[in-house]
Amino acid sequence: MKTLEVALGERGYPIHIGADLLSRADLLASRIDGRQVMVITNETVAPLYLDALRGALDGFEVHECVLPDGESHKTLSTAEHIFETLLSVPCDRRVTIVALGGGVVGDIAGFVAGCYQRGVGFIQVPTTLLAQVDSSVGGKTAVNSRLGKNMIGLFHQPRCVVADTGLLATLPARELAAGAAEVIKTALIRDAAFFAYLEDHIDGLLALDPGVVATCVARCCEIKASVVAEDERERGVRALLNLGHTFGHAIETGLGHGEWLHGEAVAAGLCMAADLSVRAGMIVEPDRERVRSLVERAGLPTRGPSTLTPERLRALMQVDKKVVDGAVRLVLLDAIGDAVVRADYEPAWLDETLRTQRA
Amino acid sequence: MKTLEVALGERGYPIHIGADLLSRADLLASRIDGRQVMVITNETVAPLYLDALRGALDGFEVHECVLPDGESHKTLSTAEHIFETLLSVPCDRRVTIVALGGGVVGDIAGFVAGCYQRGVGFIQVPTTLLAQVDSSVGGKTAVNSRLGKNMIGLFHQPRCVVADTGLLATLPARELAAGAAEVIKTALIRDAAFFAYLEDHIDGLLALDPGVVATCVARCCEIKASVVAEDERERGVRALLNLGHTFGHAIETGLGHGEWLHGEAVAAGLCMAADLSVRAGMIVEPDRERVRSLVERAGLPTRGPSTLTPERLRALMQVDKKVVDGAVRLVLLDAIGDAVVRADYEPAWLDETLRTQRA
Repeated sequence: MKTLEVALGERGYPIHIGADLLSRADLLASRIDGRQVMVITNETVAPLYLDALRGALDGFEVHECVLPDGESHKTLSTAEHIFETLLSVPCDRRVTIVALGGGVVGDIAGFVAGCYQRGVGFIQVPTTLLAQVDSSVGGKTAVNSRLGKNMIGLFHQPRCVVADTGLLATLPARELAAGAAEVIKTALIRDAAFFAYLEDHIDGLLALDPGVVATCVARCCEIKASVVAEDERERGVRALLNLGHTFGHAIETGLGHGEWLHGEAVAAGLCMAADLSVRAGMIVEPDRERVRSLVERAGLPTRGPSTLTPERLRALMQVDKKVVDGAVRLVLLDAIGDAVVRADYEPAWLDETLRTQRA
Repeated sequence: MKTLEVALGERGYPIHIGADLLSRADLLASRIDGRQVMVITNETVAPLYLDALRGALDGFEVHECVLPDGESHKTLSTAEHIFETLLSVPCDRRVTIVALGGGVVGDIAGFVAGCYQRGVGFIQVPTTLLAQVDSSVGGKTAVNSRLGKNMIGLFHQPRCVVADTGLLATLPARELAAGAAEVIKTALIRDAAFFAYLEDHIDGLLALDPGVVATCVARCCEIKASVVAEDERERGVRALLNLGHTFGHAIETGLGHGEWLHGEAVAAGLCMAADLSVRAGMIVEPDRERVRSLVERAGLPTRGPSTLTPERLRALMQVDKKVVDGAVRLVLLDAIGDAVVRADYEPAWLDETLRTQRA
């Protein structure tokens, strides 16, 4: 087991990474204050791992809330269902909420933990590659509006993250690829050597080679933990973690949340960001091709969906948390391994990217 | 104009109290970062004061969201309506949300400000006595669930509070009395001399004598600001501000939110807390009578509603943010002007209080 620390003072917490961690009662119990635990999971994950988690929570009063699977359920009305489940028990303000699932479960469970009785304890047990390498770390929580992705939420740090890489064995190939999109994103932002490693090992990651998985999860968590420690509430450098996401969120909202997986939309977004970076003279064409090729080898879309026009995508991009005073700020690439936020690109370049990077 | 400071470091803010402040553009503009403002108000307040507020916001891009009036609308679904209004504009993360209204408007607008794009700026312009003396200060935000009052929310401090006492002129007598309940509560918690002042001046408060109103609003805000500065997130002393509220919330939830005004339920709760304090040997009967008499003179209920049985109230009190590991902690009185949190009262005393303090 490898343990990383997210250095946030009194809100700091450990990330445990390794195989066979789900049964480690000690990792959980040391981060739970009260006697009540509410496990939030979904219909796909519950039959696989809920019993094992319950075993690790022996001695606590454990309740559970099993959601339908999928991004389309990451809504305020699902959150309301969870609030009512908590109130029906009733769970008091010392309850700890445990998210057992992927990014959707983690985001909505974290949102509920941040709002229930103005904030209760929260633990992440991510079961997907995407959640283990990205969404379970850093305290971003959210639900979607039909008008925009992740527009309703708050920062609420978990008390710990338990990333059991053994759980990925049951993950469908499509979900695994979606997680790889965030791995590629993380390398693109900060670590050219890690990007090169992925070019050599993407097949091993998708085949769940234990060494490659452990390396990827740990490296992504290290990078994310350091960025979050530097800028918890995204007033600066943390925005870089959204590489590909302004494009991706527009795709998700435009198609309807859940049509494409989040990682699939981000993958196309990475290719769009690389394309725009070439047009802006920031990277050269071979770099764009390296991005496109790696995304393609991961089995991910390299272009936006044919059903969304450039005009529609452009309008959807205006509803994004990185819009300030009307300008869409985008994360672009100064090099592979070096991302920057830019608002000074030519609008015509963005139009060209949206027009050409469409299936 | 009197200005108090809530001493919360980088989250600190001023409370401005005085007549004719709504037109003071300078007070607002200095606390607004971006160019967009969303005013949240309700159908009762909008015709009275929205134009004046718009005048004071000249130069900003001002949007508005007018809610139906009343506690029954303080729900997640109303919050969702506000989120969609913000997204439809679209408002970006530099938007400032201004609450123009009473406690319901302030609570839900603050909740939305805390969650929209993970937190945007927020200004309170309270238009009721209750909001000016209590709910607009301190950063508590919430919506109700049908299963419990204020159970969904977060701490999100405003950038400033502008309490224009002139706005109270249009307040219905019932609402004014409801606000007086929180004034009485504040005195009971911390300031015996202020309680004695209220015994002499309650008629002046209800008649909106300008000197009495100014004294009451300022003294309540001083006390609240000092308690909040000491304990922003209610880990200790701040809980005292909930005197009467565990009883009151149970009444509100039991009757259906909005049937009794919040202040009316709190008033009955104050009398119940005083009654239980006598049974616990903490205060003497003449003190209880002083509380009851002042509440009665304010035109407020001194007992719980006849339609709620003691058993039902007792069950509803179990769903309260002050319940820890199953025990209902209550704020009781060691003296008039000195409140304490107690969980060690005899259950039979509480039963007696619920049985005898019923209309």
